[in-house]
Amino acid sequence: MSGETAPEMTSETKAEEGVVPDPPKTPQMRAITLTGFGGLKMLKTVQRDEASVKEGEILIRVKACGLNFLDLMARQGVIDNPPKTPMTIGFECSGEVEALGPNASGFEVGDRVIGFCDYEAWAELVAISAHFVYKMPDKMSFQDGAALAMNYMAAYMMLFDIGNLRPGNSVFCHSVGGGIGQAISQLCRTVDNVTLYGTASYYKLESVKDNVTHLFDRVVDYGQEIRKLSPEGVDIVLDCLCGDDTNKGISLLKPMGKYVLYGSSNVVTGETKSFFSFAKSWWQVDKISPIKLYDENKSIAGFQLRELVFRQGQHEYARKVMNRLIQLYSEGKIRPRIDSAWAFEDVGDAMQKVHDRKNIGKIILDPSLEPKVKPVVQGQVRTHTDSSCSDDKEPVANGE
Amino acid sequence: MSGETAPEMTSETKAEEGVVPDPPKTPQMRAITLTGFGGLKMLKTVQRDEASVKEGEILIRVKACGLNFLDLMARQGVIDNPPKTPMTIGFECSGEVEALGPNASGFEVGDRVIGFCDYEAWAELVAISAHFVYKMPDKMSFQDGAALAMNYMAAYMMLFDIGNLRPGNSVFCHSVGGGIGQAISQLCRTVDNVTLYGTASYYKLESVKDNVTHLFDRVVDYGQEIRKLSPEGVDIVLDCLCGDDTNKGISLLKPMGKYVLYGSSNVVTGETKSFFSFAKSWWQVDKISPIKLYDENKSIAGFQLRELVFRQGQHEYARKVMNRLIQLYSEGKIRPRIDSAWAFEDVGDAMQKVHDRKNIGKIILDPSLEPKVKPVVQGQVRTHTDSSCSDDKEPVANGE
Repeated sequence: MSGETAPEMTSETKAEEGVVPDPPKTPQMRAITLTGFGGLKMLKTVQRDEASVKEGEILIRVKACGLNFLDLMARQGVIDNPPKTPMTIGFECSGEVEALGPNASGFEVGDRVIGFCDYEAWAELVAISAHFVYKMPDKMSFQDGAALAMNYMAAYMMLFDIGNLRPGNSVFCHSVGGGIGQAISQLCRTVDNVTLYGTASYYKLESVKDNVTHLFDRVVDYGQEIRKLSPEGVDIVLDCLCGDDTNKGISLLKPMGKYVLYGSSNVVTGETKSFFSFAKSWWQVDKISPIKLYDENKSIAGFQLRELVFRQGQHEYARKVMNRLIQLYSEGKIRPRIDSAWAFEDVGDAMQKVHDRKNIGKIILDPSLEPKVKPVVQGQVRTHTDSSCSDDKEPVANGE
Repeated sequence: MSGETAPEMTSETKAEEGVVPDPPKTPQMRAITLTGFGGLKMLKTVQRDEASVKEGEILIRVKACGLNFLDLMARQGVIDNPPKTPMTIGFECSGEVEALGPNASGFEVGDRVIGFCDYEAWAELVAISAHFVYKMPDKMSFQDGAALAMNYMAAYMMLFDIGNLRPGNSVFCHSVGGGIGQAISQLCRTVDNVTLYGTASYYKLESVKDNVTHLFDRVVDYGQEIRKLSPEGVDIVLDCLCGDDTNKGISLLKPMGKYVLYGSSNVVTGETKSFFSFAKSWWQVDKISPIKLYDENKSIAGFQLRELVFRQGQHEYARKVMNRLIQLYSEGKIRPRIDSAWAFEDVGDAMQKVHDRKNIGKIILDPSLEPKVKPVVQGQVRTHTDSSCSDDKEPVANGE
């Protein structure tokens, strides 16, 4: 399949033969396109005009894309003030530099790179500002590269720059089986003597138990369990918007402890009316009294990676963090756990696996892979109409 | 004066001569006693029974005591749920180990030490749990030792453990002319390339201008000035409860910035009705929406040193910080600025100086000093009735 499908005719100017020559056909590429917000059937792998580079951008020939819970939310149109459909979604990829736009320096054609972007990643080619492109070491696989940007950057920033993780600290993290949870558990192990408490869904308990010091099924009263094991509380709580009472989370902190509320995007502040179940829990986040923080010697922080990097101008900071992550990777201290890789055309099945919490590690989309189920008619775009993927089965915002 | 005043008779048992021998007189010491909450006239230097050590305590012969703004508040009875008067106030001192209580280990008689305590410091002898006693290096003066505990510990914890101060960061601190402000400015200089913005009262501007990168008179709109110089905002804001709108302070932060609300004590949550002007501003501290922190990638923390150390069990952490401070002192990187030293009997004048914002640096009480004004009658306790020290002139909680 990879790139060999005949380009579709995109120009409508089919002038008389011999009078005007055919205009040059715009080169085409395959991309996963969201045709409208909603269920899996809104995702289609289509041919569209190749991405082209503008000022300061790097054109990447994509080898692997990361699929995150965020993408399920993007599909539903519940994050940001969503762009108009049809559009290509996807926020991270790895690949090789195909071309450099004007004034895009620091890279050469053929460089192996990681790209972090605001939509558009799930295509054979993507143009990304050089600000958000990072060179990969030779020994890093494309799959690993595609798994670093969102989860590991977020985990690193929260643990080290907000949480100020130190030897001997304790951390509590929801959903340690999720992509970010796994990054957190690996990064915690880069510091001596860190105790990590975590929850996971029943399905993942067995496979993630070695990631954490103490693992709880997400349905148990983990607060009570943690208090039994650590009556003084924990140093850092990472709350991926599971909808618990924030004050309950803060009460788990020991003095000088830090509570970090993070998530995928600004679901609440956007104007999109969301029917996701977590939207309700968002609204239940109580306001915090600074006096309470003062009495208890505690901190609360909010963290939102894409906002930070793409809209708050912190790309230099993100690069420093990525450099550090690449160093840790090269030292063998972190290693993304890859669950599986999927063809673009199988994105629906891949998303369903995330939805069902059945992935243990990162889901990768690889444009070079053959789809599991061939399209019925050659050249016809396959759509997903699997009835188990209806909108009624909504994901919950657990970060997994 | 030091210790030579004849002990007063404290026993009422004056039995018949020859029948019962005089009970042994309890050894006496001089101490600054608060006879009731209120103005300066409530402070009296009196003879009282010598402090004695209990289990785990160290008896310190006091050479120097720190006087903080906190003591003015303690005098008014507006902090904590205040102990009953009469009592001895004072929270920090330095001196020599006079005796060790049962099971108090790690010290020897004669050791030069810093003592951090919850009241009782302003006396010739004080018994403090060994948890809160720290050995001083030989080259540290007693005055410097007495100036380290509260201001430098608080400044260190806020900058490094909450604020996570890094090279190149920017910090905004109110009242850089105050004791804690000076500690903050010196600790900021231990990190490369830190920009410190600060405010000070008019009287102190000239003398503290070298402490900070950019200094503003406290009456100017510092927020506007900082935004001109640093449009992106600052990394750390330290707010000593000046009564400004918390949200205004948070808006000064850059993304990933940390806002630390600190102060002397739990004025508000205590049951004491306070007439201090800052009490009102306390109540004006708005609740914070975690969603706002999330959207803006910011943190807010509360910090209260005495609560942390004395009631939240963090004495081991405090010791680590003190060890680090002593190391920085020994390396010549921090050095308390001493404004002046006063006899116990002159505590009223010393407090008045703090009240009038006329001190540039730390005010020290030294039990060995002769009072400026001798008591009228030998042995009579001098009281302060200076009309300028009436309760009507209330201090404001600016941390200076």
